[in-house]
Amino acid sequence: MNLESPLTYSHTLLAPVIQSGDTVIDATVGNGHDTIFLASQVGRTGHVLGFDIQPQALVATKQQLVLTGLAPQTNLILAGHESLNDYLDADQEITAATFNLGYLPGSDKTITTTSTTTVPAIAACLQHLRRGGIVSVMVYYGHPAGKSEKQAVLDYVSGLDQAAFQVLQYQFINQVHEPPFLVAIQRR
Amino acid sequence: MNLESPLTYSHTLLAPVIQSGDTVIDATVGNGHDTIFLASQVGRTGHVLGFDIQPQALVATKQQLVLTGLAPQTNLILAGHESLNDYLDADQEITAATFNLGYLPGSDKTITTTSTTTVPAIAACLQHLRRGGIVSVMVYYGHPAGKSEKQAVLDYVSGLDQAAFQVLQYQFINQVHEPPFLVAIQRR
Repeated sequence: MNLESPLTYSHTLLAPVIQSGDTVIDATVGNGHDTIFLASQVGRTGHVLGFDIQPQALVATKQQLVLTGLAPQTNLILAGHESLNDYLDADQEITAATFNLGYLPGSDKTITTTSTTTVPAIAACLQHLRRGGIVSVMVYYGHPAGKSEKQAVLDYVSGLDQAAFQVLQYQFINQVHEPPFLVAIQRR
Repeated sequence: MNLESPLTYSHTLLAPVIQSGDTVIDATVGNGHDTIFLASQVGRTGHVLGFDIQPQALVATKQQLVLTGLAPQTNLILAGHESLNDYLDADQEITAATFNLGYLPGSDKTITTTSTTTVPAIAACLQHLRRGGIVSVMVYYGHPAGKSEKQAVLDYVSGLDQAAFQVLQYQFINQVHEPPFLVAIQRR
């Protein structure tokens, strides 16, 4: 058994936490990889809210959802994740949220997530997170704006009250390039 | 399911890697927690070499091994782990090694592992490590000498050739005190 990549490990952590019928969030739809995973976990009675600011990401993901029969439980929303509270009732609980920071692979690399919206969006997800629920943040920081976003995210999550949250960093540390790492935040 | 502590996660990683009959190393016997785990994993046909420089650690661990029927496959050696090559044939393969850095709980806190022996001992284990095998290092760095040892270990492992090894750091990052973290090194 090989050590899991951060992305694979994020799904290993999320899978047992998400139940049929849950409401969950994909804060960065991108290539739809997490959206598909989340939609299959929550099932027909569940609900995935997926956010992205790039129409082509939503169009391509919608096609995949239709082909896999996962569209009914999925709402794709053309908006930044910083507005997610506009789409959730104040008392709506979620069991999971996923973030993939950086740019959309194969697209305009200058369009990236940034700390000014990422940190408030993580904070909004934590407000709605049920006990035992997990917010997963894949931090890709190889692009020019990536370093400051990485630092802002680490500053924010490492300051979360340890009585309320566990914050795990899962990272390969001997790679020449700057591979993505995982931050997983679980409400106690 | 809660996020696993670094110590629990180290056993989660090691368990599927260690087979009956394997040879493995506990480089820091201490309270015997890892020795017992390793001895139960390798079974009667396997072999655990356990090192410690403190006689009381070995005496207490020996008692536990006898009580649990795990003594036959275990060799406890009163010597520092830097001498482990004296106890292994040059071509002996191992599938796992465990390190718990710091001091022996409940004992003299000034007797700690230090980078001058820890880093060479990790290097020796890696020489013998079979493909797929894992060296697990629990880094306790709350004691005075801990910071420099932690840095020396991180410098060493983060410089390991990524074509030969994967080096994972698994750490909770929002705790006020300085909790131990795990470094897991797997030979590809």
